[in-house]
Amino acid sequence: MDKQNTEINDFYQRLMSDYDDSNSHSGIDGERVARRLSEISQIGATDDGGSKRISFSQEEKQAKELVQKWMKEEGLSVKVDGAGNVFGRVEGKSNRPAILSGSHLDSVPHGGHFDGPLGVIAALEVASAWNELGEQPDSPYEVVIFTDEEGARFNGGLLGSQSFVGELDIEEEKKRVDFNGTPFSEVLDQAGLTPQGFVDAKRDLSDVKAFVEVHIEQGKQLEKRDLPVGVVTGIAGPTWLNVTFKGLAGHAGNTPMNDRTDALVAASEFVTNVKDFPPKVSSSGVATVGKLEVIPNGVNVIPGEVNLTLDIRDIKAEWKERMVQGIIAYAEKVSEKHGTTVDIQENMSVDPVQVPEDMQKLAGEAVEETLKSEPFYLPSGAGHDAMIVGRHIPVAMLFTQSQDGISHNPLEWSSLNDCVQTVHVLKRFIEKLS
Amino acid sequence: MDKQNTEINDFYQRLMSDYDDSNSHSGIDGERVARRLSEISQIGATDDGGSKRISFSQEEKQAKELVQKWMKEEGLSVKVDGAGNVFGRVEGKSNRPAILSGSHLDSVPHGGHFDGPLGVIAALEVASAWNELGEQPDSPYEVVIFTDEEGARFNGGLLGSQSFVGELDIEEEKKRVDFNGTPFSEVLDQAGLTPQGFVDAKRDLSDVKAFVEVHIEQGKQLEKRDLPVGVVTGIAGPTWLNVTFKGLAGHAGNTPMNDRTDALVAASEFVTNVKDFPPKVSSSGVATVGKLEVIPNGVNVIPGEVNLTLDIRDIKAEWKERMVQGIIAYAEKVSEKHGTTVDIQENMSVDPVQVPEDMQKLAGEAVEETLKSEPFYLPSGAGHDAMIVGRHIPVAMLFTQSQDGISHNPLEWSSLNDCVQTVHVLKRFIEKLS
Repeated sequence: MDKQNTEINDFYQRLMSDYDDSNSHSGIDGERVARRLSEISQIGATDDGGSKRISFSQEEKQAKELVQKWMKEEGLSVKVDGAGNVFGRVEGKSNRPAILSGSHLDSVPHGGHFDGPLGVIAALEVASAWNELGEQPDSPYEVVIFTDEEGARFNGGLLGSQSFVGELDIEEEKKRVDFNGTPFSEVLDQAGLTPQGFVDAKRDLSDVKAFVEVHIEQGKQLEKRDLPVGVVTGIAGPTWLNVTFKGLAGHAGNTPMNDRTDALVAASEFVTNVKDFPPKVSSSGVATVGKLEVIPNGVNVIPGEVNLTLDIRDIKAEWKERMVQGIIAYAEKVSEKHGTTVDIQENMSVDPVQVPEDMQKLAGEAVEETLKSEPFYLPSGAGHDAMIVGRHIPVAMLFTQSQDGISHNPLEWSSLNDCVQTVHVLKRFIEKLS
Repeated sequence: MDKQNTEINDFYQRLMSDYDDSNSHSGIDGERVARRLSEISQIGATDDGGSKRISFSQEEKQAKELVQKWMKEEGLSVKVDGAGNVFGRVEGKSNRPAILSGSHLDSVPHGGHFDGPLGVIAALEVASAWNELGEQPDSPYEVVIFTDEEGARFNGGLLGSQSFVGELDIEEEKKRVDFNGTPFSEVLDQAGLTPQGFVDAKRDLSDVKAFVEVHIEQGKQLEKRDLPVGVVTGIAGPTWLNVTFKGLAGHAGNTPMNDRTDALVAASEFVTNVKDFPPKVSSSGVATVGKLEVIPNGVNVIPGEVNLTLDIRDIKAEWKERMVQGIIAYAEKVSEKHGTTVDIQENMSVDPVQVPEDMQKLAGEAVEETLKSEPFYLPSGAGHDAMIVGRHIPVAMLFTQSQDGISHNPLEWSSLNDCVQTVHVLKRFIEKLS
């Protein structure tokens, strides 16, 4: 048996090892979910059990083709748009706008096997279940694979969903080069795509009622509460700030304590208290100083300058803005207290997307009806295709429990039981939307 | 006129430009001080008006030879020990132990023209003044040039003074290689020295009563008070600590605020409050976090680890130790509060040296008698040859005002008026000691 087959079998075996077969019912088959996830995991498998399916690579293409094969086997009619987004359609009893569900198949350069594929396979499993049961949804249903969610190729991402909603600025994209220095158009050409195709990919959104994305949580909230699935309340778009405190460098030995303007002391007081801003505004808000650099950074030199970054997120734009303004005012206050200067630049600001109340309510009911448990609601701190789509049509997300919150890493893991429970909730949710 | 001569003349012109000639009296000649400083500045002059006389270089040797020439012209008997330390001796009326004064002539790779040379030229000017006045000191007097104070060659320094007091561990030194990878013994060989010479350089210290070093302040205390000269109370040996806070890295979006163990938040609270420890212990104590590194240092990643350094100094070992212990205990308290771990390593600890009370008193009297002003006392935060010598015999230091506290930099500057005022104090001080 060659290495790749060992990998896939190990992954499949591990998924199945603690699977409770009683979770397979109502047309949903855990073994099929495991097999499909395993077959995808084989494409771009890395030596250490991880996944490398960079966007616009042969591996992303191969994974899409594999899922298209399954779509066709399940009787779905497959369409690929100019951005390479794949839609596998089940016609409904009526010709109402379609309900879409899916995610992406590309990965970060050294990723796991759930981020993306689970959302595609879960959406496909709903169609497979209807097939098993001989059922047809009321509204048309489409299983979606969006191109290039992760952005590992051009350091951007969400290209497929942006094209789908007509948000992509193709002239800006054309300026990009990938990690090898290959220009955007050339990379597209190698993948059998064209820039114009991305423009043409814009879907007539009056044809679409809603988009639902299943994704692993990439956090620990569900694990802490021992829950298989959670209902997402909103997707928190980040605001990134660059903050620079400038004081006066000096000799650590020859400058008395009362004659210093130490940029690091000022920055530290700021960092210490940034954590207190989110709880004042909401329970979903977060603010993080992740990066901090000291200049000149010498053992015996009083720091003259500190550059730090702030990542501020919340699911409501208004809440996020309140945090941003509060934190900026506080930086100025700390700077004044310590006699430093402070300069604050906004580097990026992505609007958060709220999941509409009625979508959350239906998803919660689907949890109650299928799992017989209270729904748990949580925000998504990371961006997803649903964030892009949600600016145009109603979206919802279901999160599946992540082990230790680990993601973008070969150690990424979710139990098959939790994946299958999520599919049950998704199927009921889609049927209720339908 | 070639470049080098322009430089020296520029430097000389600048020294003389605001010189008040009434400061030249009692045998002390400001013009001679300026000329000697200028001639030394020419050796190893850099394009931007700085100085490069690396220890054990031809430039250091040349500068020593130039001063030896002046010593001989002034009738001093010159001895060079096995470490290359130079002693120019004036016999006293009595044969009591000698009083020594001097400093060093080597520089950092990109230094100025005062750090070191001023101490040597000030000491020599005292002997020149006696010559002019036809006077002889009561005790023998030696002008000293110590080898390799700065340590630019082997990243160590103070080699000459360590050899002089017999403190040098020559076997350890032999393991060193310089910035070019040249071994210690080979560098010495090129400089006409031998390792054994450094061992033999140990002076019989019963022959020496005291060592007085004139040096630029390298701080701003004298400038702020508009004083030409200050009396040093002690030389603060640094203790260097490496402190590592470890928390849990995590996604900045998907980890709620109340579920974080952010190493940077803990480290920041620590850094913010370190500044409050020195004033509790003494007015001379300082504590500085100069270097801080965040791991992994990503905008959207909660910091999992922070490594920082502490530089803690005071002129009394007991005061310094009290600060060190207080700060260590506080690091542990902060760590516990934030749920991180903290690891603290002592990297270096140099004992401070106090200037004996009676030496400070005599120096203070010399200030009052020569400048007709109250003496100002201040600690030395940086290490000097006097710190090494002071562990064995009484030492004192006089600081000359530094412009903007800048040192180890071509911009290093002290006015000739302040330099000459310092020589007046030094001369009176030596005579009182004599």
